[in-house]
Amino acid sequence: MIIVLHKNIQGSDLTDILRQLEEWGLEAYIAQFEHRSIISIANKVHSDFDIRKIALLKGVVDVYRVDEPYKLASRTWKKNSTCFEVKGVTVGAEELNIIAGPCSIESEEHIFEMAALISKEGVKFIRGGAFKPRTSPYSFQGLGIEGLKMIRKAADTYDLRVVTEIMDASQIDDVCLYADIVQVGTRNMQNFYLLKQLGKINKPVLLKRGMSAQITEWLMAAEYILSGGNEKVILCERGIRTFDHTGRNTLDVSAIPIVHELSHLPIFADPSHGTGNRNRVIPMSLASVAAGADGLMIEVHSCPEKALSDGPQALYPEQFMALMTQLRALTSVLQNKHVREPQKNTIWV
Amino acid sequence: MIIVLHKNIQGSDLTDILRQLEEWGLEAYIAQFEHRSIISIANKVHSDFDIRKIALLKGVVDVYRVDEPYKLASRTWKKNSTCFEVKGVTVGAEELNIIAGPCSIESEEHIFEMAALISKEGVKFIRGGAFKPRTSPYSFQGLGIEGLKMIRKAADTYDLRVVTEIMDASQIDDVCLYADIVQVGTRNMQNFYLLKQLGKINKPVLLKRGMSAQITEWLMAAEYILSGGNEKVILCERGIRTFDHTGRNTLDVSAIPIVHELSHLPIFADPSHGTGNRNRVIPMSLASVAAGADGLMIEVHSCPEKALSDGPQALYPEQFMALMTQLRALTSVLQNKHVREPQKNTIWV
Amino acid sequence: MIIVLHKNIQGSDLTDILRQLEEWGLEAYIAQFEHRSIISIANKVHSDFDIRKIALLKGVVDVYRVDEPYKLASRTWKKNSTCFEVKGVTVGAEELNIIAGPCSIESEEHIFEMAALISKEGVKFIRGGAFKPRTSPYSFQGLGIEGLKMIRKAADTYDLRVVTEIMDASQIDDVCLYADIVQVGTRNMQNFYLLKQLGKINKPVLLKRGMSAQITEWLMAAEYILSGGNEKVILCERGIRTFDHTGRNTLDVSAIPIVHELSHLPIFADPSHGTGNRNRVIPMSLASVAAGADGLMIEVHSCPEKALSDGPQALYPEQFMALMTQLRALTSVLQNKHVREPQKNTIWV
Amino acid sequence: MIIVLHKNIQGSDLTDILRQLEEWGLEAYIAQFEHRSIISIANKVHSDFDIRKIALLKGVVDVYRVDEPYKLASRTWKKNSTCFEVKGVTVGAEELNIIAGPCSIESEEHIFEMAALISKEGVKFIRGGAFKPRTSPYSFQGLGIEGLKMIRKAADTYDLRVVTEIMDASQIDDVCLYADIVQVGTRNMQNFYLLKQLGKINKPVLLKRGMSAQITEWLMAAEYILSGGNEKVILCERGIRTFDHTGRNTLDVSAIPIVHELSHLPIFADPSHGTGNRNRVIPMSLASVAAGADGLMIEVHSCPEKALSDGPQALYPEQFMALMTQLRALTSVLQNKHVREPQKNTIWV
Repeated sequence: MIIVLHKNIQGSDLTDILRQLEEWGLEAYIAQFEHRSIISIANKVHSDFDIRKIALLKGVVDVYRVDEPYKLASRTWKKNSTCFEVKGVTVGAEELNIIAGPCSIESEEHIFEMAALISKEGVKFIRGGAFKPRTSPYSFQGLGIEGLKMIRKAADTYDLRVVTEIMDASQIDDVCLYADIVQVGTRNMQNFYLLKQLGKINKPVLLKRGMSAQITEWLMAAEYILSGGNEKVILCERGIRTFDHTGRNTLDVSAIPIVHELSHLPIFADPSHGTGNRNRVIPMSLASVAAGADGLMIEVHSCPEKALSDGPQALYPEQFMALMTQLRALTSVLQNKHVREPQKNTIWV
Repeated sequence: MIIVLHKNIQGSDLTDILRQLEEWGLEAYIAQFEHRSIISIANKVHSDFDIRKIALLKGVVDVYRVDEPYKLASRTWKKNSTCFEVKGVTVGAEELNIIAGPCSIESEEHIFEMAALISKEGVKFIRGGAFKPRTSPYSFQGLGIEGLKMIRKAADTYDLRVVTEIMDASQIDDVCLYADIVQVGTRNMQNFYLLKQLGKINKPVLLKRGMSAQITEWLMAAEYILSGGNEKVILCERGIRTFDHTGRNTLDVSAIPIVHELSHLPIFADPSHGTGNRNRVIPMSLASVAAGADGLMIEVHSCPEKALSDGPQALYPEQFMALMTQLRALTSVLQNKHVREPQKNTIWV
Repeated sequence: MIIVLHKNIQGSDLTDILRQLEEWGLEAYIAQFEHRSIISIANKVHSDFDIRKIALLKGVVDVYRVDEPYKLASRTWKKNSTCFEVKGVTVGAEELNIIAGPCSIESEEHIFEMAALISKEGVKFIRGGAFKPRTSPYSFQGLGIEGLKMIRKAADTYDLRVVTEIMDASQIDDVCLYADIVQVGTRNMQNFYLLKQLGKINKPVLLKRGMSAQITEWLMAAEYILSGGNEKVILCERGIRTFDHTGRNTLDVSAIPIVHELSHLPIFADPSHGTGNRNRVIPMSLASVAAGADGLMIEVHSCPEKALSDGPQALYPEQFMALMTQLRALTSVLQNKHVREPQKNTIWV
Repeated sequence: MIIVLHKNIQGSDLTDILRQLEEWGLEAYIAQFEHRSIISIANKVHSDFDIRKIALLKGVVDVYRVDEPYKLASRTWKKNSTCFEVKGVTVGAEELNIIAGPCSIESEEHIFEMAALISKEGVKFIRGGAFKPRTSPYSFQGLGIEGLKMIRKAADTYDLRVVTEIMDASQIDDVCLYADIVQVGTRNMQNFYLLKQLGKINKPVLLKRGMSAQITEWLMAAEYILSGGNEKVILCERGIRTFDHTGRNTLDVSAIPIVHELSHLPIFADPSHGTGNRNRVIPMSLASVAAGADGLMIEVHSCPEKALSDGPQALYPEQFMALMTQLRALTSVLQNKHVREPQKNTIWV
């Protein structure tokens, strides 16, 4: 930490500052220059320490916390990109991981139909919500545990891994029983109680960015999970809130290279929530991959007009197939990623 | 709901739209004007219905949901401003309610000291966190239930009502045992699982605005609580996130008259979190009251330099006393509010 | 300027950094601590210098520009608040300056009517646009020089000072001929060419905040005028752009105490543009004054329904009178401001 | 325009509304439904008309302006994408147009060096500022007309087209003498006086998005130019302002497909200003093209450390060459775009 002092600081103010720093356990060294003096703190400042306390002392111009507030999530701490296996499929490596499926699990028949559709395209992860966070208390709230059973059964039939959202810490046991990756939604990104519990489980966590979360805050939220002992965290950009109204959200594609700079964790993009409009999903999927995304989360529905939630952002099956074809072409010219081929011998139930 | 059609819509597209609307259970009436045609939906559209579904139909220009998505929180539904008693003190009426105290409960001795200080100034509500939502997992996380016991004891000694934050639904029983008003923090404003549970309790809920929540979303969050049967909701503006960096947050004073227009619920302001800087708390407190706030939530600490959390935004005791004096002067010239006088015979332990 | 180095910086990288700094004319001093090393630049760094250049050098963790980028606008540079006279009325001192009038100058008759109305209430500044910046090229663009003549004549009749907007540097001669204070609108806050020209005139400039300008950028825009030799700058907060849609803009009341901290310049508020809705103008006017505003800019119209621009945010005459009464009450309890009494012997033409 | 009335509107209020609408020249038709009544306005409402006037009438719930406020910029008005030639090179068609060069014109020697570098890579447009809008009045302000002469000479030598920024309407004659495309910067996007003048010139205009401009406002700004008679407008996304601090701006890649939906005008991206950091320029360039951009504007410098402005966002020559290679690979798999090959026989002066 560095403390910049007023040019003409009074001796008594300086004494007060030094005494106060000592009281806070901070080891201070003064460096005097022609221009002005600064104090450098030699020992590691606990991330608990609120630097505004110093900023308000008389004689202080400004304070800078030099170290990043997150540690385990930082690329400074761990140089190599994190990758891990989920039932035989590697996340964060050369394969562009595609998670696809409907917004909500609607029925057993429907989730089987969707599982068949996506697995035929080479997809290895299925999504579908059983507990739905809805802005209105009067909206469809999901099928709950019955829904989880349905998606598990469909996934097992088609060799898929299940990604599904948890809304509250009380659901951990149930969700972990059926899911392969536990998703934390945008509204829960700073539900610290939940994050702490997820630090103790033995499943990867897909952590969506809060809709107005700074990237640093997002990495701090990941730190909650990592510091609990769970190293398998996937970050997922899903659109931020801006002043523009032409879309539901603004997918922050530029977060992708920034996260790669700051952190070793894999980063996915969700262009379905990020745009809220199926016609924009294909261009924004391609953009995300071109920017370096490790994976995509895509909503697709056999009949979006009848979807129980978020139908307008779900791709039609033929759009989804077109997207997969374009992703294969795109990754063929990118050095570091590839997409699985569609299945030759399709299992169709 | 109103659906605006393309000027030169083809007959077959119109037929498709009408068929689709019927399938969705919507009763459509076409009104043809020289200029263009519109469809009006005669029956009440369930707030569950996602209007983007219609917007994407061929031949549709735009769709407007005429009704507010919230109902119970709306002033359309209930004309008179909501006010209720909390152990003999009325919230939302002529008294400007002041909630004061430290950010965190730090020790029994300290919370007693703070209770004495504020009650001497005529304050009737004490704040103090036992479960603290901290951006960093390495920060002080609160004293938990032991802290709740301390604040309850101090409150009972000085005739104060306890306002404290809940972080997870699993804490409801404990918090309700000790608190008079249960606070939901900014990061939990859309923790719908928690909101639903709070709809079932018999205590008022102080619902802070999410730091990037639109006012409509905030009222929808209140609707979750109201629709569960709990009518005692206090809204609390606590600073929003903008592009400016000179303050931690930007207290949105203009939300106060807007909430009064749209809703019957009482609205408080929290200039301590809203500014993050004690030197700005007094002007922003006065501004909030001048704009029509029903109450204030103020952080004060006997020694902010030693506060375990958020010290830089806590007022010194003498600043707090000065603020109370200024609030009394200000409310003396406002027709609709007053502030309690300081105690003549102070109980001092 | 302070440069923080990597903990384990290589000797060759450090040599490269020092050589590069020397080449840029920066006088570097290294301070080595147990924890890490930093470089402090002893000489004053030109505000022209782009510090990102240093941030990208190998071995550098971060760079901090310690000095504020603005100088003449800063309270560090000038401790006492700026106040100056405009034809016998002091701006920035104990009087709360009220600027009132219609959005646009509409006709000679109308501007005389408005001048009579406001001067009767003790107001000393009249506003009215002759050159209007309109989002649409098809909207009313103002009466131009003819309008300026009308407002001048009305102002002279009622002892008022004219505040009117300039849109382009080519209008300076004309506007200065008729105006007493030249207004720069929100969309021109960073029209640096115009700002430079206004640094050379001998009239006060009222500089509205850009609708997404950081406070620092706003002060930098003021610096353009001040550095040209014109010391009479009034800052005017007029609403910023946020993610909320319930109002046209969000009046940033908290900017008022922040500007007072950072700068010696007077700061006004414009709740008419800041809310875009006449029903919110009174509470937000009172809030601005309670927060410490030096003045207000208020739109009022004899018949807002017929206003040629921004009618919905113009007060009715009776609302304006009610506001003036409330401002007198409010300032009677604030120590540092007062509002002029209404005229006893009204001049009525 | 559609006006939604209160469910239980009183007869006298309805009469007042209808009388007022008639006075404003609006032809009203009432449609009564079981649920509520609405008024539809049959005649075209002038874009000058401020619909808030109606929203504030007693008995009105809401008002919707059905038509887009812009016309000439809209894809409703013109279905086919606009493309035009600039000295033999087509903009907006199958070729991905690359504009490259330094931020500022620094010297004749340097601009010749840059022209040689980019033309060797097949680039046909050179950028370079002679009039620089700088946040600080103390920063380098550009070489002015001398700079324009230098870039023109270099462009003529290497068969390049000149793109350079105009800052004020008074510079039009000079800039048009030397430039092939006139650039309007982000801070001037709503300098309506300048836009109007640019509607009269016979050169294409590259209109950068204001840093907090809604897409609709941006199209309205284009409308100012188009409505003056100049049909050659290029839109250029250059990063918006959000709440995140890890980058200078946030390049809004999602604006690209949205502009293609709403407008027929070509849209470019400027990842140099959009990120402010050269290490993020390559991924964001690829992302922009994958999202459908018609062109890119890229800053490149032979020695970014010595650049007179914005060096940190300028690519090194070898980075620029790598980018061009990657763009060729990327466009080879996109159906609708291609990039020119590098020159075989390089002209090198």
